[in-house]
Amino acid sequence: MQDFNFLLFDGFETLDAFGPAEMLGQLTEEYELKYLSHHGGIVKSQQGVPVDTVPVARAKRSAPLLIPGGLGTRKLIESGAYIAMLKDLCEDAAFVLTVCTGSALLANTHLIDGRRATSNKNVFAWASAQGTGVRWQKHARWVCDGKYYTSSGVSAGMDMTLAFIEHRFGKARAQEIARYAEYVWNDDAENDPFAAE
Amino acid sequence: MQDFNFLLFDGFETLDAFGPAEMLGQLTEEYELKYLSHHGGIVKSQQGVPVDTVPVARAKRSAPLLIPGGLGTRKLIESGAYIAMLKDLCEDAAFVLTVCTGSALLANTHLIDGRRATSNKNVFAWASAQGTGVRWQKHARWVCDGKYYTSSGVSAGMDMTLAFIEHRFGKARAQEIARYAEYVWNDDAENDPFAAE
Repeated sequence: MQDFNFLLFDGFETLDAFGPAEMLGQLTEEYELKYLSHHGGIVKSQQGVPVDTVPVARAKRSAPLLIPGGLGTRKLIESGAYIAMLKDLCEDAAFVLTVCTGSALLANTHLIDGRRATSNKNVFAWASAQGTGVRWQKHARWVCDGKYYTSSGVSAGMDMTLAFIEHRFGKARAQEIARYAEYVWNDDAENDPFAAE
Repeated sequence: MQDFNFLLFDGFETLDAFGPAEMLGQLTEEYELKYLSHHGGIVKSQQGVPVDTVPVARAKRSAPLLIPGGLGTRKLIESGAYIAMLKDLCEDAAFVLTVCTGSALLANTHLIDGRRATSNKNVFAWASAQGTGVRWQKHARWVCDGKYYTSSGVSAGMDMTLAFIEHRFGKARAQEIARYAEYVWNDDAENDPFAAE
């Protein structure tokens, strides 16, 4: 049993974190889901969900890490201390998954310079300006490059997470989880219904 | 501005509650989302999300109410006190929306006897046995009957919630919210990809 860490912050987008949590939470033998924030305590999503979190200092740092997006990212990218904490945490994590503008946060660490990545198509100009060294993909439901998985907006996080599960545990397992959640999985990273023309 | 209540409990299914919260949370002028539980305090979803909740005694009872499903429902249906509390709350609510086995909880109040309703197709036999007076629909992504909206499993809650938003605020608004969340909305209640043959 391994931890799977979710890094939450005030103003995170609810479904960015909890869509993937729904899917990963079915792997009850493999992962224990942990909800972290920089300093711990209650953090509130953009949609008002108050979540009780564990401080990053108490995390198992080698665990896979998911970073949601949301309006809260706008403030965090201004904080050198936050980005330094995030960089250390991402370096130690076995895998780093981002949803929506979570990739804008990640890009600020420069860890994905030279790598392919994507983000929410509604705010793509802003997100991609956060990492001019990143090879941003305008047409992708999600992108996997090395240990980094980045997805498009909000719901795309569920499709990416099922792909992550497929890569680790096989396609049948990912399909079984999608069926359990009565979720119509878009399992093709290149099928991006929300990409601009 | 009106409250929109989510009734949480230990062992609620994460996406049942937070998929709809994502969609309803975009109606920032119309609704303030409130996360309740019977006695308040931290409740943990089946996927380990610890949510800080307000006690039902402090809720605005006329607000619309969403009831998620999840393994936690199995214990609650055994509690006469819980079902009595739920019945009172549902009677006062302007609308009652259930996801997955949330409809099994609701059925135990007998408020939907004679009405059409649905539930998760993976556990349909169990759920439908919870309310023999209900006109259970085996093939439906969601069902609207009067002030009661019931949906199939987990992800179906998002489709149902967007339909609820359509009914209240128009189709364009619901489509705009789906697009924001990069969510491919199944807007046809009769299109149920997970119904048994």
